[in-house]
Amino acid sequence: MAKPKKRKLLSKLRPRKQSKFDKKMGKAPGTITYMGKREGKPSVVNIMEYNNDDLNITSPGDIETIVAHRDPPMTSWIDIIGISDEQFIEQVGKRFGLNSLVMEDTVNPHQRPKIDEYEEYIFGVFKMLYIDDDTNELVYEHVALILLENCVLVFQELEDDVFAGVRSRVRNKSGRIRSRGADYLFFALLDAIVDNYFVILEFLNDKIETLEELVYQNPTQEIAHEIQDLKKQVLKVRRWISPVRELVGRLIDSENPLITKDTKVFLRDVLDHSLEINESLQIYREMSMSLMEMYMSNMSNKMNEVMKVLTIMASIFIPLTFIAGIYGMNFDHMPELHWEHGYPMVWGIMIVLFIGMMIYFKRKNWL
Amino acid sequence: MAKPKKRKLLSKLRPRKQSKFDKKMGKAPGTITYMGKREGKPSVVNIMEYNNDDLNITSPGDIETIVAHRDPPMTSWIDIIGISDEQFIEQVGKRFGLNSLVMEDTVNPHQRPKIDEYEEYIFGVFKMLYIDDDTNELVYEHVALILLENCVLVFQELEDDVFAGVRSRVRNKSGRIRSRGADYLFFALLDAIVDNYFVILEFLNDKIETLEELVYQNPTQEIAHEIQDLKKQVLKVRRWISPVRELVGRLIDSENPLITKDTKVFLRDVLDHSLEINESLQIYREMSMSLMEMYMSNMSNKMNEVMKVLTIMASIFIPLTFIAGIYGMNFDHMPELHWEHGYPMVWGIMIVLFIGMMIYFKRKNWL
Amino acid sequence: MAKPKKRKLLSKLRPRKQSKFDKKMGKAPGTITYMGKREGKPSVVNIMEYNNDDLNITSPGDIETIVAHRDPPMTSWIDIIGISDEQFIEQVGKRFGLNSLVMEDTVNPHQRPKIDEYEEYIFGVFKMLYIDDDTNELVYEHVALILLENCVLVFQELEDDVFAGVRSRVRNKSGRIRSRGADYLFFALLDAIVDNYFVILEFLNDKIETLEELVYQNPTQEIAHEIQDLKKQVLKVRRWISPVRELVGRLIDSENPLITKDTKVFLRDVLDHSLEINESLQIYREMSMSLMEMYMSNMSNKMNEVMKVLTIMASIFIPLTFIAGIYGMNFDHMPELHWEHGYPMVWGIMIVLFIGMMIYFKRKNWL
Amino acid sequence: MAKPKKRKLLSKLRPRKQSKFDKKMGKAPGTITYMGKREGKPSVVNIMEYNNDDLNITSPGDIETIVAHRDPPMTSWIDIIGISDEQFIEQVGKRFGLNSLVMEDTVNPHQRPKIDEYEEYIFGVFKMLYIDDDTNELVYEHVALILLENCVLVFQELEDDVFAGVRSRVRNKSGRIRSRGADYLFFALLDAIVDNYFVILEFLNDKIETLEELVYQNPTQEIAHEIQDLKKQVLKVRRWISPVRELVGRLIDSENPLITKDTKVFLRDVLDHSLEINESLQIYREMSMSLMEMYMSNMSNKMNEVMKVLTIMASIFIPLTFIAGIYGMNFDHMPELHWEHGYPMVWGIMIVLFIGMMIYFKRKNWL
Amino acid sequence: MAKPKKRKLLSKLRPRKQSKFDKKMGKAPGTITYMGKREGKPSVVNIMEYNNDDLNITSPGDIETIVAHRDPPMTSWIDIIGISDEQFIEQVGKRFGLNSLVMEDTVNPHQRPKIDEYEEYIFGVFKMLYIDDDTNELVYEHVALILLENCVLVFQELEDDVFAGVRSRVRNKSGRIRSRGADYLFFALLDAIVDNYFVILEFLNDKIETLEELVYQNPTQEIAHEIQDLKKQVLKVRRWISPVRELVGRLIDSENPLITKDTKVFLRDVLDHSLEINESLQIYREMSMSLMEMYMSNMSNKMNEVMKVLTIMASIFIPLTFIAGIYGMNFDHMPELHWEHGYPMVWGIMIVLFIGMMIYFKRKNWL
Repeated sequence: MAKPKKRKLLSKLRPRKQSKFDKKMGKAPGTITYMGKREGKPSVVNIMEYNNDDLNITSPGDIETIVAHRDPPMTSWIDIIGISDEQFIEQVGKRFGLNSLVMEDTVNPHQRPKIDEYEEYIFGVFKMLYIDDDTNELVYEHVALILLENCVLVFQELEDDVFAGVRSRVRNKSGRIRSRGADYLFFALLDAIVDNYFVILEFLNDKIETLEELVYQNPTQEIAHEIQDLKKQVLKVRRWISPVRELVGRLIDSENPLITKDTKVFLRDVLDHSLEINESLQIYREMSMSLMEMYMSNMSNKMNEVMKVLTIMASIFIPLTFIAGIYGMNFDHMPELHWEHGYPMVWGIMIVLFIGMMIYFKRKNWL
Repeated sequence: MAKPKKRKLLSKLRPRKQSKFDKKMGKAPGTITYMGKREGKPSVVNIMEYNNDDLNITSPGDIETIVAHRDPPMTSWIDIIGISDEQFIEQVGKRFGLNSLVMEDTVNPHQRPKIDEYEEYIFGVFKMLYIDDDTNELVYEHVALILLENCVLVFQELEDDVFAGVRSRVRNKSGRIRSRGADYLFFALLDAIVDNYFVILEFLNDKIETLEELVYQNPTQEIAHEIQDLKKQVLKVRRWISPVRELVGRLIDSENPLITKDTKVFLRDVLDHSLEINESLQIYREMSMSLMEMYMSNMSNKMNEVMKVLTIMASIFIPLTFIAGIYGMNFDHMPELHWEHGYPMVWGIMIVLFIGMMIYFKRKNWL
Repeated sequence: MAKPKKRKLLSKLRPRKQSKFDKKMGKAPGTITYMGKREGKPSVVNIMEYNNDDLNITSPGDIETIVAHRDPPMTSWIDIIGISDEQFIEQVGKRFGLNSLVMEDTVNPHQRPKIDEYEEYIFGVFKMLYIDDDTNELVYEHVALILLENCVLVFQELEDDVFAGVRSRVRNKSGRIRSRGADYLFFALLDAIVDNYFVILEFLNDKIETLEELVYQNPTQEIAHEIQDLKKQVLKVRRWISPVRELVGRLIDSENPLITKDTKVFLRDVLDHSLEINESLQIYREMSMSLMEMYMSNMSNKMNEVMKVLTIMASIFIPLTFIAGIYGMNFDHMPELHWEHGYPMVWGIMIVLFIGMMIYFKRKNWL
Repeated sequence: MAKPKKRKLLSKLRPRKQSKFDKKMGKAPGTITYMGKREGKPSVVNIMEYNNDDLNITSPGDIETIVAHRDPPMTSWIDIIGISDEQFIEQVGKRFGLNSLVMEDTVNPHQRPKIDEYEEYIFGVFKMLYIDDDTNELVYEHVALILLENCVLVFQELEDDVFAGVRSRVRNKSGRIRSRGADYLFFALLDAIVDNYFVILEFLNDKIETLEELVYQNPTQEIAHEIQDLKKQVLKVRRWISPVRELVGRLIDSENPLITKDTKVFLRDVLDHSLEINESLQIYREMSMSLMEMYMSNMSNKMNEVMKVLTIMASIFIPLTFIAGIYGMNFDHMPELHWEHGYPMVWGIMIVLFIGMMIYFKRKNWL
Repeated sequence: MAKPKKRKLLSKLRPRKQSKFDKKMGKAPGTITYMGKREGKPSVVNIMEYNNDDLNITSPGDIETIVAHRDPPMTSWIDIIGISDEQFIEQVGKRFGLNSLVMEDTVNPHQRPKIDEYEEYIFGVFKMLYIDDDTNELVYEHVALILLENCVLVFQELEDDVFAGVRSRVRNKSGRIRSRGADYLFFALLDAIVDNYFVILEFLNDKIETLEELVYQNPTQEIAHEIQDLKKQVLKVRRWISPVRELVGRLIDSENPLITKDTKVFLRDVLDHSLEINESLQIYREMSMSLMEMYMSNMSNKMNEVMKVLTIMASIFIPLTFIAGIYGMNFDHMPELHWEHGYPMVWGIMIVLFIGMMIYFKRKNWL
């Protein structure tokens, strides 16, 4: 009977024939292939061009207008939403003079976070993490930032509001963003992404606290599953977030002229935040392991309690039943049976035994 | 029935809509927003101005008098208690020529410990840790130290007595504090903070020893929870304390002219203490894991004991009851029932069985 | 009885007399001895000679023709399939001026991945990993790449299709492969190997997900074995894959003139992929440990459930049986036996007891 | 009932009001306060002054005579036993020109091992570890070594015989000690301390081996406690011993003119021993964790055995008792009861059942 | 009763009075004391003197003849077997101009592996590991190699055949050994030692595989002990083997003129092998931990099975016995007893109950 099960098990363990890498396998490096799931929508382009005095907001549709912002008189922020239109993205890349490997990573949502410095630009890939309101699961979105001399190119998988704060600061001239160059904008966007990670940390923190409470109250198997889920989420979040620290650190240490010394002071602040995030993730990891341990210890406690009830019931009533059994025997010659007070005497013995057992268990602290 | 439970569980796991980061999110970096819980109190400023001969203690209320101590003829220690008055803090920062990022970290009690060197000043953020006498829980307080050329600015969330020793040394001219400059004062304050950590270590050490004893005596579920709490406390304390070592190490290695070579010898002492603290925390971590292990092993022992009682009782009395059952049968033809000594013979058999079982269990070391 | 078992156990633990290293032991270093299992087949040589304009594909049999491609006017890719013909391999090595240690590693399928730089060539050993379709097990194949000035020598244990994509790109002039030199070809082959690792990752990922589901449904001992197998596979894969990251990193940092600066940009991409692979393997490792933990917790849960059934059945029926035993005694004077409603009263007591127990277990959440 | 227990638990967990740091807290750094427990004894001073030809041994009582040995014509070893006389120690420190921080560490028995280099001297703090013969516990003693140009100052908490070997080598002119300078003496003392650690390692090793044997024989809860004790001892020993390696390593690398190149060769030997000690401690740590694991597995085994006995007894006799119960029923119409061979038949059925069960359990390998 | 046991336990835990370090303690560093167990045999000296053309093999007994080979015209390999004759070894050391610390390490079989570079020679200590054919245990042998300008001195504790391969290569002029200098011989010996480690790895690998199989089949306590033994063996092997990697790495990086650039290429090969060995040991460590986990999970499984049998037997027969007990009561008024079909009806009820329970357990997958 075990055999066919095994075979079924094995068949389940066979790899799927259709791989998410199939699209990519065997193609030349630098081939621009969108590998995400959100296909089909055309890209939308929003451009903010600003200096301390002026601000132009446009949404051009044709590529020529976009490319015109490559070397603008003002600082320009070119925001491209939707990266599934491979040809369009390739065109933009070519016209902005970007390496094809850069463009390949731009449209690959599975790319791990990285910052690569080229002679004329700095290229960064990051993940934005959200909690889906419906499923309560973590979802992540791929973002690519390219810092050129007077211009920041942003590629986003989805339109979202993480950059809304930066946008309104540009609009309202709040803070120093309007008076500084493209490198400060690059920093501001990076800062917005990293700040957003704190929401995820808080989500994880809340989850840990809730699970902790639940484990203390009533450790069910569901909670064990939730703890394992939590562990997996912490692992995944760590994977997407933790490289940021090293990347930003390297950017600060680099001599790249695209980033001014003033902006580096601000990048140090981002570095600081990523350090803090990494430390928190490390703590969450240890806490989720602690949770599992607590769960196991509570399970063990419950088992102990179950066993105690069984042992007490059995230890008390099995000997009593034995005594009753004795006087249920049908021997011709059983003098006790004929004693006038035989029956109450047996009751007496049984009660004494019962009380003795109770005292014994009380002393053992089992009651 | 499991389904609605699951839903309830999930709803508990949903993130709270109100986040402690809401206040901050989307604002420009360098925006000075107090993010702690102790709002509303106006800041109190105490200034000690001293050299080897003189000592002036004042508590000015207006900002001009405070700023006058920026470049004093003597060494001055400006102690600002209460950091929730954002405007006041911002004013102080501006007048002392401090970076807005510095001021942002100054009023952020969630900021992790750090030391940042600027051209004209050194900025440090630390945590002071206390044990709340009522709840017996760890609380931490945020402290920012800024070393300028002849002046140390201190921002404290709460008035407390960690610096009382330093203050009285200044007052009483004890030690060398009065004859040395602002950098020595900076060191003395840092030293006071780090020395204070030893109290926390002792608290954790006592807790470990008490729990160890309790685990040996009677491992209840409550103790398991206390052990888990301990683990969390060690994690948290480590988070706030452990960066200090690296920070002080870097400060000693830096070439900053604000810190004299003489003072570096003393900073080495602080470094030494932080090393010792980190080692202790590492040991506490391993010991708390050991405690949990011991707890589990004691639980397992107790279960074993419960099972032994059950097994002994059941193994002895179930066979005896079976024998009694035999002679309780009502067959017409059961010769033993009619034997004259049938009844005592059965008793004999049962007693022999009983003694045999007892010897068996004795040999197995179960009794 | 334990003794002979022990001896049997020990005899099983004795090392086999025939070792896979016997062939090698005691020979001089640099001795070219094929140590794999796929012996006996003669080597097949395929040569692709190309530049941007021309492409020649040949399969020469004699060594002179092969050696003629050592310093060709065009870029040449010499692919040698089958490495068990030691004499042939040794000849090739000598004629191409390769160190005997290089040739020793070339024919040793147990060699761990490495990249060694010599003055005139760069030598790399890698593993290609496959999933055997029949046994569903991991198999690995040994590949050696040697980059000379205008030529790449490839030694493969088996003919396989990992390089098929590169081959077709050369044939079809797709991408930039035809317009670049031997170092780009070297990169392209390395890239093909590393890309292939993603298939293995996906296989492992699928296995983890399937096992996770199975552990949740019904944790049998078979699944525990599968989890342990998974752990071993992750360990083995990590062993063969993880060194690649460091090797490629060192190659990028080296000043070797054989690799142009242009190609280094592409190697950075390979480095990036190996980083990602290593991170994934780390995560898989933690997840497989989590799986085992989950398995143990589910086992514990099941045990708890079994114990509860036993405890409930025994706790309810043992006392009831005792009561029945009481009134099965044969005392002459048992007044209850003669009461008219004695029998229904006993039933009443028993039903009350039964209901009481049910309520008790319900309250304890055991039902 | 759980509440008051909790409160009691919490009250036990409250920190003691009297802290070992109270003495120190708030005092200026560099204040010389003895923090150990061995107070009240006056310091004893033994001086050995030697060169290759002569040897003077004195025990001066007044400080002037001691200080006269600061710059002696010969090499002098000043051994000060007893460090609780703060004023005396402070005087010595001042007269020898030592930093007050050095003197503070000298009298602080909680100071972790360290080596600090000053311009005119090298200061080292180490721990000597002993096994108390009565309690079989580890005790440690604080030792400070100060290397000046021609003189080594030693501060010992207790008089002990670790340095006896060095003393007799000086006395007997054995080895090269008499022909070399103060730095060789410094090395010889350090070497004596480190050699002494091997005795501790052996003690730990013996303990591990004894516990291993005991765990295999009969795993009682006491042994679990001993294992936990062992783990704590390894942790503590590691704490006191492991820094030595790094400290000696740094001393070898330093350019300090107080230590000649010849002596560095010998220090390398000390470094080597500390490396070996650290490795052993690492192994002991893993072995003590292994012991705990073995203990748990043996506990689990014992539980299994207990359960098997219960299961076998219950599975055999409960069904037999049921059969006996059947024929103990009092129905008017039970034909079997009146069969002539009813009783032996029932015995037959029961014996068959018994044998069947025995075979079943035998097959399951439970007997 | 627990008290005397405890005392017995403690007495077992007391350190032995006779320590293996007693011989050494208190002696001056550089004292040549043999600390192994294989005393009493006089040393045997074998000398091979060779160049590309000639080969002389001698076994001189007197020290003068040996020393004459210190600066030979040809390359000479001086093999000294047996290191317990302290005076002889000391003489050799002095006459060859070796540091007394070197000679101390040469005769100390507990010395951890090391390579020390002196101005005129390179000194290396290594362990050779064997599996004892009788006890199936690991034994190790101490080997010291000293590379002088034209000569390699080898000190072996025991005569063995690890160097037999090298010896025969010298004899047979196979490979390049005869045409190269002393540094190549040094490498060849080191290579022979490291190659020998692969046999140990294979032994461990076989043991792991055998234990894995046994754990799957029938996890007895003996197997748990074997797993723990395995873990200890892996720890010990790692201790002796793992330093080799770093030592050889440092030797390659050093600028020592005793080792030619050509030989460094070969040393890289040794480095490569030690890397591989270290990785394997790491994997074996993880696999032995996995084995223990598997053992625990199988134990848990077996316990589950035992519990299931108990629960099924008890849950089925206890209620049935209760029913039988009911109708064994002796009430005067029990109408069922007098029904004509009472008895078969009770059987009916009992059979229905039995079938119901069977279905219930079947559904729970317990059968």
